[in-house]
Amino acid sequence: MKPLFDKVLIANRGEIALRVARTCREMGIRTVAVHSTADRDARFVSYADESVHIGPGPAKRSYLYVPNVIEAALRTGAEAIHPGYGFLSEDADFAQVCAENGITFIGPRPEVMECVGDKARVRSLMAAAGLPVLPGSEGTVPTLGDAEAIAGEIGYPVIVKAAAGGGGRGIEVAGDRAELQEVYRRTTALARQVFGNGDVYIERYLPAARHVEIQLLCDELGNAVHLGERDCSLQRRNQKLIEEAPSPALPQRLRALLGEYAVAGARSVGYTGAGTMEFLVDPAGNVTFMEINGRIQVEHPVTEMLTGIDLVREQIRVAAGHPLPFTQQEVRFTGAAVECRVNAEDPRAGFRPTPGRLEVFRVPGGPGTRVDSGFAQGDTVPPNYDSLVAKVIVWAPSREEAIARAQRALAEFEVGGPGVATTIPLLRQLLAHPSFERAEHTTRFVDELMAEQPTTRWAA
Amino acid sequence: MKPLFDKVLIANRGEIALRVARTCREMGIRTVAVHSTADRDARFVSYADESVHIGPGPAKRSYLYVPNVIEAALRTGAEAIHPGYGFLSEDADFAQVCAENGITFIGPRPEVMECVGDKARVRSLMAAAGLPVLPGSEGTVPTLGDAEAIAGEIGYPVIVKAAAGGGGRGIEVAGDRAELQEVYRRTTALARQVFGNGDVYIERYLPAARHVEIQLLCDELGNAVHLGERDCSLQRRNQKLIEEAPSPALPQRLRALLGEYAVAGARSVGYTGAGTMEFLVDPAGNVTFMEINGRIQVEHPVTEMLTGIDLVREQIRVAAGHPLPFTQQEVRFTGAAVECRVNAEDPRAGFRPTPGRLEVFRVPGGPGTRVDSGFAQGDTVPPNYDSLVAKVIVWAPSREEAIARAQRALAEFEVGGPGVATTIPLLRQLLAHPSFERAEHTTRFVDELMAEQPTTRWAA
Repeated sequence: MKPLFDKVLIANRGEIALRVARTCREMGIRTVAVHSTADRDARFVSYADESVHIGPGPAKRSYLYVPNVIEAALRTGAEAIHPGYGFLSEDADFAQVCAENGITFIGPRPEVMECVGDKARVRSLMAAAGLPVLPGSEGTVPTLGDAEAIAGEIGYPVIVKAAAGGGGRGIEVAGDRAELQEVYRRTTALARQVFGNGDVYIERYLPAARHVEIQLLCDELGNAVHLGERDCSLQRRNQKLIEEAPSPALPQRLRALLGEYAVAGARSVGYTGAGTMEFLVDPAGNVTFMEINGRIQVEHPVTEMLTGIDLVREQIRVAAGHPLPFTQQEVRFTGAAVECRVNAEDPRAGFRPTPGRLEVFRVPGGPGTRVDSGFAQGDTVPPNYDSLVAKVIVWAPSREEAIARAQRALAEFEVGGPGVATTIPLLRQLLAHPSFERAEHTTRFVDELMAEQPTTRWAA
Repeated sequence: MKPLFDKVLIANRGEIALRVARTCREMGIRTVAVHSTADRDARFVSYADESVHIGPGPAKRSYLYVPNVIEAALRTGAEAIHPGYGFLSEDADFAQVCAENGITFIGPRPEVMECVGDKARVRSLMAAAGLPVLPGSEGTVPTLGDAEAIAGEIGYPVIVKAAAGGGGRGIEVAGDRAELQEVYRRTTALARQVFGNGDVYIERYLPAARHVEIQLLCDELGNAVHLGERDCSLQRRNQKLIEEAPSPALPQRLRALLGEYAVAGARSVGYTGAGTMEFLVDPAGNVTFMEINGRIQVEHPVTEMLTGIDLVREQIRVAAGHPLPFTQQEVRFTGAAVECRVNAEDPRAGFRPTPGRLEVFRVPGGPGTRVDSGFAQGDTVPPNYDSLVAKVIVWAPSREEAIARAQRALAEFEVGGPGVATTIPLLRQLLAHPSFERAEHTTRFVDELMAEQPTTRWAA
C-alpha cells in the first residue's frame, strides 16, 4: 500500500483549516497553514506545525492567489494540499497546477472537477446517467431569447442559475417573462463578476421543496459508497442555517433511491474523494438532481456523527491511493445529528456581520456535543471573511432528543464582545418552531418567516 | 407511566453537577444547584435554574451537611435529589432522610445502598450469588489475631480493606506477618477517622491484575442490563488516571462472563439505578469480584460514547419509576473510547494540587471529542476540593485511533494561570508508553514507573 503523506498544506482558514489539521495530527501527518495578514493571530495558524504568510487580507491576494499557495507548498515540502471548502476547493485549474508541480490535490481529478463545476454540463451528464432532473435547458442559455423560449416551453416560474455558481450565489427565480428579462441580465452579470464566467442555465422552479444531499466517498480503485443523506432545508436566502441527518421527511424508499442515484452519478463521471450530491424533494416525494459539490461540505460533521467515519481522514487516504476501508454494507447509521451554524451577525440589523473581539467565548460541552470553531476566548473575528464563528453539532439516539440537546448546547454557548452579536437566539427560535419540530419546512420556510415578522424579534 | 420530575436538586459540585444539569435541561427538568461559599462563582451554580448556598468551604459543613441539603430541596420544591459521585452519593442514611422527607433519592434504595456500601458484606453476598471472590475473610476481621489467622490460612501477600472505604482510600497491602500488624493498625485507624467505621476485611492480594468494571442499569420493574466494561487499569495509588472501553485485554468469553456476573449479582441484591461492579482480571484470565459502586462513576462517559446511552437520563427515568427503554439485546457497542482525567496537580512536586485562576483554558474540540469540565476560561479552581479540572473523552472506530485522538485532544488543550500545573504532560506520556499501547499494564504500572524514574520527567 502506498504510504500516506508526511506533510500536508491546508489551503484554507478558520474552522475548516483547524478541522483538517486535527485529523492530520491524529494520522501523524505534519501540517502547514497558509494565512493572510488578517489571520496572522488565528488559532488555525498556531495549531499547524508550520505556517506561511501568503498575502494581505483580501482573499484574492492570499487564499485565492494560486502562485503564493503553490510556492508555500514547494518551499515547505508539503506533498499534498487540502483545499477545505470555498476558496480554491472547486478550482480545477488550481488542481491542475498542483499536479504540474508534483503536489497531490486532495480532491477529485482536475477533469472531474471541471465537469462537476459546470452545473449546466453535469446536469446533462446526470440525466444521461439515469438521474431525474427538472425540465430545463440543455446546457447553458447563450441569449435572453433562448431563455424566453425555454421558459415558455417548460412554464413559469423558472430558476436561472450561474453554471459556475456556488455557495447559494448566482441563483434567482423568475415568475414571468418580464421578470425573466431582469433576472437573466442580473444573473449573467453577477456570474461574470463573481465567478468570471457569465454562463447560466434554466430549470423549472419548485416553489416548495426540501434540500436533501447525499454524502459520497469514492476511491481510485473504483469503489464508491454513500454515507446517507443530510437534510439542509433550513436555509435563509440559500444559505444553510441548520442541517440534520437522517432527513425527517424522507421515506426509506426514497433514502435508498437517492443513495443509488448518487453512487450511479458519481461512477458515471469517474468521481474520486469526498463529494456531495444535492437533490430537491418535493412534497409529493418527487426527487430531482440539483448539483454535485466536489469537496468537503461545511455540514460534513453531521454525517461523521451518524456513521463514526472521519471524512477528512478518508479524503486523505483516498488521495494517497488507498482503498476505502469499508463497503457500502459495512456503513452503519445510528441515531440523529443536528448542526447549527453560529454566525457573528445581527439578525436585528439585516444580518449585518458583527466582527470583533470575542471577550467571552465559552463553548458548550458534555454528552453528544461537538464544537468546530476557529476561535477561542480572546480571539478576534476579522471583518474580511465569512461570519461563521462555530458549528455546534450534536448527536442523540432520536431526532427529538437531538433537538433538545442542540437547544441545551446553544443555551450554554456564551459569546460576547464589543459589537459582537450572533445568530444563536435565531437558531434557538428556529429549533423550537413547530414547523421545524414537525419537519414541515421547505427551503423557503425561513425567508417566509422573516418576511412575515419584523427581524427585531430575532433578538441577538 | 409516572411523570418525570419537574425539578431536581443536584447535591454535588464541579463537572458532575454541570453534567447532571445538562441532561436535566435536555429532559425539560428544572435544576437547583447547592453550593459552598468557595463555589459561589462556579459555573455549575450559574448554570442551574436556581441555586442555594448551603455552607462554608469545608465539605463537612456544606456538601456533606445533610440538614442544609434537605432544607434546600424542601425550600425550592425539588422533588428529587441527584447526588453525583462522592459526597453523599453512597450515604444510605442520607437516602433514608430523603425518603422521610418525601424526596426521591436518585440512586438505589437505602437498604441496598447499605448493603453495597459494606464491602465485607457485599463480598459474601456476591460469593453466595455465584460470583468468584478472592480467598479471604468471611465478613469483617474484628482483631489483629483474627487477621493473622486468616492471612496464615490464605497466604501472603494479603490486602486489608476498610469495609466502608471508597475512592481508593483505606486499602493497603501486607507482604508478611510483621507488615500485617502495622497495616492492620493503620487501616482500622484510618477507616475510623475517614469513614467513621473501623471495620476491615482481608483478601489475598493479586500483585498483577487489571481493573475491569461493568456498568449496570436496573429499573424498579426487575429489568437489569449491563452496558459492557470499562478498563481502568491505568491508576496511580489507586486513583484512576485513564479509562477506556472496550478493555484491550479481555477475551470475548470473559467479557460475556463478567456481564453475566454483574447482572446476576445486581439481581441478587435487588439493585436499582446505575451502578458499577468492579472486577480484577489476572494475567491467566481469572476474574474475581472486587466491589459494587452504587452511583454514577467519574468515568461513565466512556460507556456513553460506546453505547450512545445517556446514563444520567436513565438514572432519572429509573428513579421516576420508568422502565428501561431497551433490552440487553438492543444495547450496541461501537468503536473505542478513552477518558483522560486532567487534574490541576504538579507531577514534579509529588502531585501537589495547584489550584488557582485559569487565565487560559482552551478546551479541545472537533471530531469524536467530548469535554466535561466545571470550569471555563477566567474561572478559579478552589483549593477546597479535588483537583479534577476536566475530563477529556474521545471516541474513534478503533483503540489505536482513539489513542491518537486522545493525544491530539490533550495536545490542543491549553491550560494556564499563576501557579497552575496540570497532569496533561503525564497523561500524554502514559498514552504514548509502549506498555499502554500494547495493553500490558496492570494497576501497578504507573506506581512502578514513577518509582523507577524521577517525577521531574513528568514535566507540567
